[in-house]
Amino acid sequence: MKVGDHHYQTVWMEGATVRMIHQNELPWHFRIHDCNRFNDSCDAISNMVVRGAGAIGATAGFAMAQAFLEAPSDGREDFLYQAKKMIESTRPTARNLFYAVEKVFHAGQESIESAVNEAQAIAAKDADDSRKIGYFGNKLFGRKMRILTHCNAGWLAFVDYGTALSPIYVAHQQGKEVMVYAGETRPRGQGARLTAWELQNEQIPHLVIPDTAVASLMAAGKVDLVITGADRIALNGDVANKIGTLDRAILAKHFKVPFYVAAPTSTIDPVCRNGNAIVIEHRSQDEVLFQEGPDAEGNIHKIRVVSPGSDAWNPAFDVTPSKLITGLITEKGIISAHHQSIKALLNQSN
Amino acid sequence: MKVGDHHYQTVWMEGATVRMIHQNELPWHFRIHDCNRFNDSCDAISNMVVRGAGAIGATAGFAMAQAFLEAPSDGREDFLYQAKKMIESTRPTARNLFYAVEKVFHAGQESIESAVNEAQAIAAKDADDSRKIGYFGNKLFGRKMRILTHCNAGWLAFVDYGTALSPIYVAHQQGKEVMVYAGETRPRGQGARLTAWELQNEQIPHLVIPDTAVASLMAAGKVDLVITGADRIALNGDVANKIGTLDRAILAKHFKVPFYVAAPTSTIDPVCRNGNAIVIEHRSQDEVLFQEGPDAEGNIHKIRVVSPGSDAWNPAFDVTPSKLITGLITEKGIISAHHQSIKALLNQSN
Repeated sequence: MKVGDHHYQTVWMEGATVRMIHQNELPWHFRIHDCNRFNDSCDAISNMVVRGAGAIGATAGFAMAQAFLEAPSDGREDFLYQAKKMIESTRPTARNLFYAVEKVFHAGQESIESAVNEAQAIAAKDADDSRKIGYFGNKLFGRKMRILTHCNAGWLAFVDYGTALSPIYVAHQQGKEVMVYAGETRPRGQGARLTAWELQNEQIPHLVIPDTAVASLMAAGKVDLVITGADRIALNGDVANKIGTLDRAILAKHFKVPFYVAAPTSTIDPVCRNGNAIVIEHRSQDEVLFQEGPDAEGNIHKIRVVSPGSDAWNPAFDVTPSKLITGLITEKGIISAHHQSIKALLNQSN
Repeated sequence: MKVGDHHYQTVWMEGATVRMIHQNELPWHFRIHDCNRFNDSCDAISNMVVRGAGAIGATAGFAMAQAFLEAPSDGREDFLYQAKKMIESTRPTARNLFYAVEKVFHAGQESIESAVNEAQAIAAKDADDSRKIGYFGNKLFGRKMRILTHCNAGWLAFVDYGTALSPIYVAHQQGKEVMVYAGETRPRGQGARLTAWELQNEQIPHLVIPDTAVASLMAAGKVDLVITGADRIALNGDVANKIGTLDRAILAKHFKVPFYVAAPTSTIDPVCRNGNAIVIEHRSQDEVLFQEGPDAEGNIHKIRVVSPGSDAWNPAFDVTPSKLITGLITEKGIISAHHQSIKALLNQSN
């Protein structure tokens, strides 16, 4: 997608180097971060230089390919096994991560080249799936649509296009009148920082709203549709996604606003029966206690926003039960968030 | 209530000076702000040096009394009328403000002394009402209670004790085991800054949660009771309160958690039939775009937290319909949020 006049992807691999947009520095600075070795790529995932389900998956696949490139001939199997474990331990909730690592690990049993090719194919498929999600999601859009989204499930969260934002990009390109409300998404503010930044680059009308203003916005009749992304989807249609997604799903139900989740099939975890089985990552309370950003002169400061001495609770994700979800927008079409539809979709993949 | 070893009220009047805790500087600095003239007091209300329904009401009453002290003999009536309008224009949503200004204005028709006495009586009654709200609210508490609150309806929001937090203080004093979850309350963060600060001063166990984590907290079964304050209550029981209150009320209903609103009878607007008639203040988008706080060295910085060039939507309040409210905790007892109960309560006052 566009940054100024250039076309960028969120993450890509050149030779043995994994290159990515440094998302911790956005929207203040646009910079490419290079990971020369697989453990640099691991750090980039755990420090959230790269974040978002698809982008994490692609990076994890690349990291696994890097490990094959780096593996010594002595103790090769051990090295690769440890590398796999290390990559898998960077972020516990994102389904795409495990999916990509597994695929590249298996391909690498054949040759190093196969590992690299598989990682590239996963990234290419991620971009292509996102593009298709945009195509199908756009079918839900009338000529004039007001959309609420949460966190960032735009192209920064994937290799390109994104999921929740992809239909918005397609609708906008087709000349539909789109207005997007981007929820701030505390503690890390991905909505205010990343979604707003993407929408601005694409020149799509939008407003940032505090996470406290969702019910007011819906009560005022300003939302036609909610679309969020997903970090992991269980076989029964329960969805793990950024903290606050469940809040929005319940509010949407109350105000009778359709609530859609946009995600590629790779987000579905075929061994996860329902949401109770999903491990929720709890992150450092510092994310709640402090905020970082530039002052008027552009100098970045880390400031405290919680009373000193008080502690905070910081789960990174929540689980939205399938009954609150109007439908899933996938690269194969829009389906209902039910066991049967998901099973049919997975069979279609095989 | 306590700050260190001292007992403080939020706002009080000494001679012609209105003195108040500077709430914009909390929790980083504790400082008393003096308003020597009525328009200083107006500025303190509009700039939120003092905030919270009861504290605004008391300050507005004091400001009106100051206007009587300052009024010149030439054009006295005009001066007082203009002063009244000016005080009333500082914050449009708080019922207590209009209530206090009206009362002091009428008392002042008799003598300047009457105006000052009336303002002092309003402040004293506010503290006393809050104390009684604590007494009645505590009856809802078992030996072990986990409470979610929103914004700050503690003693900083009133002259003393507070409303939503007052039952918590009483329960804690009685040795009940209380755990409080304080919602951050973006954009201004009154929960993270003021409620957390109060609870710490009173040594009550608490955690700050991001505004996105309310549904997760309830889904995890960690909330026995929600208590919030109110800025204005309509005759049918609809409640205007800090943005995000409606969200919490809907979530509480979904998770079958009792949702109480604590407020003195003076918060009920006898000419407001229902929530549709309540004017909602929209504040500057800068409150969403920027955050202020100290760095590790204690230097205060104002940083940007939203992508540059993006705008924000910033309603300060929302309206929670009475059907979502389990009960109102008042200084006269707990009543249901229904027209009849409210009418009976108001008749009792007369």
